[in-house]
Amino acid sequence: MAKLICDYNFAASKNILGGISEEDLAVYKKKAELGYERLLKMVEEGSVGFPKLPEYDTTELKDFAKDVKTNYNDLIVVGIGGSALGIEAVVNAILPYGYNAMSYTDRGCLPRVWVADNVDPSKIQSILKICTPDDTLAVVISKSGNTVETAENYSLIYSWFKSKVQDMKKHIVVVTDPDKGPLREYANNNGLRSFPIHSSIGGRFSVMSPVGLVPAVFLGIDIDKMLQGADSITKDGLEQVLTLSAIYLYYMDKGKSINVLMPYSSRLDKFAEWFCQLWGESLGKKYTMDGQEITFGTTPVRTVGAIDQHSQIQLFREGPLDKVVTFISLETHDNDVSVKGDFYEAFNYLNGLHLGKLLNSELKATEAALLTSKVPSVKIGVNILDEYSLGQLFMLFQYIVPIIGLSVNINPFDQPGVEEAKEYAYGMMNRAGFENKKTQFESIYQKDDAFII
Amino acid sequence: MAKLICDYNFAASKNILGGISEEDLAVYKKKAELGYERLLKMVEEGSVGFPKLPEYDTTELKDFAKDVKTNYNDLIVVGIGGSALGIEAVVNAILPYGYNAMSYTDRGCLPRVWVADNVDPSKIQSILKICTPDDTLAVVISKSGNTVETAENYSLIYSWFKSKVQDMKKHIVVVTDPDKGPLREYANNNGLRSFPIHSSIGGRFSVMSPVGLVPAVFLGIDIDKMLQGADSITKDGLEQVLTLSAIYLYYMDKGKSINVLMPYSSRLDKFAEWFCQLWGESLGKKYTMDGQEITFGTTPVRTVGAIDQHSQIQLFREGPLDKVVTFISLETHDNDVSVKGDFYEAFNYLNGLHLGKLLNSELKATEAALLTSKVPSVKIGVNILDEYSLGQLFMLFQYIVPIIGLSVNINPFDQPGVEEAKEYAYGMMNRAGFENKKTQFESIYQKDDAFII
Repeated sequence: MAKLICDYNFAASKNILGGISEEDLAVYKKKAELGYERLLKMVEEGSVGFPKLPEYDTTELKDFAKDVKTNYNDLIVVGIGGSALGIEAVVNAILPYGYNAMSYTDRGCLPRVWVADNVDPSKIQSILKICTPDDTLAVVISKSGNTVETAENYSLIYSWFKSKVQDMKKHIVVVTDPDKGPLREYANNNGLRSFPIHSSIGGRFSVMSPVGLVPAVFLGIDIDKMLQGADSITKDGLEQVLTLSAIYLYYMDKGKSINVLMPYSSRLDKFAEWFCQLWGESLGKKYTMDGQEITFGTTPVRTVGAIDQHSQIQLFREGPLDKVVTFISLETHDNDVSVKGDFYEAFNYLNGLHLGKLLNSELKATEAALLTSKVPSVKIGVNILDEYSLGQLFMLFQYIVPIIGLSVNINPFDQPGVEEAKEYAYGMMNRAGFENKKTQFESIYQKDDAFII
Repeated sequence: MAKLICDYNFAASKNILGGISEEDLAVYKKKAELGYERLLKMVEEGSVGFPKLPEYDTTELKDFAKDVKTNYNDLIVVGIGGSALGIEAVVNAILPYGYNAMSYTDRGCLPRVWVADNVDPSKIQSILKICTPDDTLAVVISKSGNTVETAENYSLIYSWFKSKVQDMKKHIVVVTDPDKGPLREYANNNGLRSFPIHSSIGGRFSVMSPVGLVPAVFLGIDIDKMLQGADSITKDGLEQVLTLSAIYLYYMDKGKSINVLMPYSSRLDKFAEWFCQLWGESLGKKYTMDGQEITFGTTPVRTVGAIDQHSQIQLFREGPLDKVVTFISLETHDNDVSVKGDFYEAFNYLNGLHLGKLLNSELKATEAALLTSKVPSVKIGVNILDEYSLGQLFMLFQYIVPIIGLSVNINPFDQPGVEEAKEYAYGMMNRAGFENKKTQFESIYQKDDAFII
């Protein structure tokens, strides 16, 4: 299987002012290596598990899916954040565009797929209107088993099933901690089929655990191929991982505060969103040094080429020079096709031009235009976009991001900053144990009408 | 109809360190007023037309739509950037989630909707597989009539129609310049139904021109209500427009380089994307002062609450303090529903909790949590999300963004930075007249294999 390609020509000092020199690259690779060693140590100790996910034995999962996947017209994934973004990226990349509007046979007799992430009533109510309980399988995903949005959406789905189906067990699969948490207890007490998320797998590193694999396998996605792609990075991608980590570290040090991901494929739109969680939540951290509070991290921005040439490129080229751009390029686009340009003579120049080739020319043109504007970029290239290369892309960034964090001694695996808002919300909901948070929230949230117009 | 509410409590110096004081607000409002005056002058002179769009007489359009809209099972919008993002925002906000998977009757006997924006073969090929020529209406949108992605996608659609339909004129509507450009010539020469984009309407300000209105009306959207909402900002929203412009200007001066839009509704996901084009392309500009090149603009980031609490909030709270956040809140969520929380006792605390209320509590909790982390935010509130309030939101930002630009004397209506990549791509395509650009591109794009691994 093909290796992915990392091209950093347009980030190298030879080609761009302020670019990384060979000497700098060597220095930052040393730093990245330190991060990598720290990561390996955590993996050995068992506190970090993502690199071992490709070893996951998928037999049980595939057997289960074989028995059930063609029995349902709809699959509802109930999860948010790390429990939703991964499968959304897989669906977007691998299933055809407009999949849910296709007929059952055009879908290969596989279910449609819905992600109930947000507690937006219009979204979940629509999903429940479109689906029928008898014909639906829900996969409920929460590592802690406590996620309020997931519990709220699931509660609605549960009521919807309850009055309409004979055997709830045929309609619900749970993915949660193997041992603890309310969702684990619920699954065990009710004899529901469940799959584990081990404690060493954080939400944003979980796409290749049952979090992503369970819904994926029900959709006919070749999960083994995805895991093989991922594993190829562990076995054969270290040089690329360390080089890219070094380049990102270099530009972070140089004050590039925004990290743009720009795949030239609409199929990687959701991958870019997945990347934003991985990057933002892992690296946006504060720490204390010599009594001083220091913030770390840069802001990920997701774009899609060529669409964002018509939206963000103006800013990237002429706005502040605070960005480094990462392109993702597909050498070959599935179903590529050429056009005739014969509808009007002014467009004859398009005759014979393939869409995918145009997309790739536009990528190169944008790389060059950014270069002339002194905006550095790197490019990750895959042959074709399939389960294998998608697995490679997931794993590539799953290594790069913690390596960057660990190299500067921040913890890329926690997310202390998300707790406070959760607890205020619990307080407002009068949940037992959060009375203090309610008081605290109310003292902050004193509105002054003078500032409302 | 209800006014929208602007709440800047959590950006006011009284409540947040580094916030805007009443004195600062007065100063920056003066600046914003200057921008507003400059804008009004351009409107009077006729070079800028968006404030007048609500006066557009929609009778012809509605009559046309009445005759044809139920005759098609599918509507394909062919357009990119400003010709796509607006209608996508409208569809996302107004049509139910999963609309394209609904039955014809559940859709009110209206067509499904597809946006052929990117030249991604997998996307357009899927669309053409799902639709049937006989039953499809294509709306081709390009102001210049030259947009290569639109011409390329349309060329494919044209071939697809050509062999299968009797009368092409029944299947194609063109939206382009009233007088010039190849798409105008094409429409005129072939007797195609067409609607104009006047020269005073830039792509990113065009959602309430025929660019957005033509596809919207075919989908049963109440375009008059949207225009009324928009007009209410012109007539009754100046105080809010100037205050928000002033607050954004203040934070730009204070070095907040990232402007986050965070609606708490999945229905405003695409609105946030529309906003990113408007903000980025209008304000990301360079200019020369005293011989020095100066860059202007900040980077827009789109998020959706509560989803991004599980993705970006960690970074926003603990990462660099380079952000100002704009929330959009819906007081009432359509189809709101409460849950029982009875599937397991640990979730009994959810009993009676409405999804929309939870979402709004989470918004408040996040506002408060950002405040404690010294991240300023403003909040725009609407009663409900419908055509009227969507029109308000569009127009609010259509005023704010150019006012900011004009107040500092940059041109918010051009996009010189997007030309170069286009021209390089034309060069690669051997288009006549771009031979120089080809040579220029090739001299830049000399790859060195040493930097490819």
